[in-house]
Amino acid sequence: MPRWEQGSGERLRTAALQLFREHGFENTSVVEIARRARVTNRTFFRHFSDKREVLFADADDLRAALVDELFRAPHVADPLGVVVGVLSQHAWEALAPRRSLRERQAVIAANPELLERELIKQHVMALEFADALTRRGVDEGDARLAAGVGVQVFLTAYERWLDAAEGDEDLVAISGDLLATLRATTPTGPS
Amino acid sequence: MPRWEQGSGERLRTAALQLFREHGFENTSVVEIARRARVTNRTFFRHFSDKREVLFADADDLRAALVDELFRAPHVADPLGVVVGVLSQHAWEALAPRRSLRERQAVIAANPELLERELIKQHVMALEFADALTRRGVDEGDARLAAGVGVQVFLTAYERWLDAAEGDEDLVAISGDLLATLRATTPTGPS
Repeated sequence: MPRWEQGSGERLRTAALQLFREHGFENTSVVEIARRARVTNRTFFRHFSDKREVLFADADDLRAALVDELFRAPHVADPLGVVVGVLSQHAWEALAPRRSLRERQAVIAANPELLERELIKQHVMALEFADALTRRGVDEGDARLAAGVGVQVFLTAYERWLDAAEGDEDLVAISGDLLATLRATTPTGPS
Repeated sequence: MPRWEQGSGERLRTAALQLFREHGFENTSVVEIARRARVTNRTFFRHFSDKREVLFADADDLRAALVDELFRAPHVADPLGVVVGVLSQHAWEALAPRRSLRERQAVIAANPELLERELIKQHVMALEFADALTRRGVDEGDARLAAGVGVQVFLTAYERWLDAAEGDEDLVAISGDLLATLRATTPTGPS
């Protein structure tokens, strides 16, 4: 790869997010993204199969790494704790800067087709997590519950982290707080 | 409505599920559904806007009723417990026979477009639940967590109930069990 092409993936990501925000996802073409990033169209397609993938390729890589991490977790006696712990710890280390993730989120929220894709990917992630836990010997029903709920806890924490002020709390701490909230039963007596 | 048209909605549902299972969702037309149900096409369109709606119209009605129920819940001190309780209790009373729900589930699982729609509807349901809880005075963050997780707990219970043998456990009991499992912390010490 020629020296000037180093970091072209990152430049393409930045350019695409800028253009999606300026003109909308639908009104932005691959040609425009490549031009803004100062790379050729061919370079774009070496990194991404289409403009949608600019938003999802990182998440796919992260998901694969997380399933692997989950499968290698030292303990699975508390499957929900493991899912939330692995997801938040690993995501925290791998995530892009918060500002660009906020932009990504805004683009996805503004486009129903992208939101559908995001939801499908979350669904697949939960299925893969459940499968990894089952292969680790967790009962299948418990694995499904832990995976489905664990992904929800993480997504709620992620949303809260995106909304928080710069420098505020880390994602691992927020996730841990949410899990504790969830487990603190507040009995509701009759009125 | 003429007497012979009574129950035509139900007949259309049954006919559509049969045809979707026999020939696939994509290969079934509204004309065929109406013919199998022995009603006119016009009658079909008095009940449903398109063939996809045969699968989702009931769920939409149920969702609206659930949001209303949640908003009128006597206590919201334990938002997660309220979401799971209202969802399972109300769904349990309103749900169609298990056999036809199993068929519906199989049709949706076999078609990516339908699965996307189902996921979007679950997403919207969680958002509406969070909104209802917030209007009841629950902190917004707690409301989002309870709604997102509560819907997951219910869906896991629903799946388990669909898979269970005829006559086995009720949905409310399964949901309660899952919530208890979720809240039972099993601390994982160092190895």
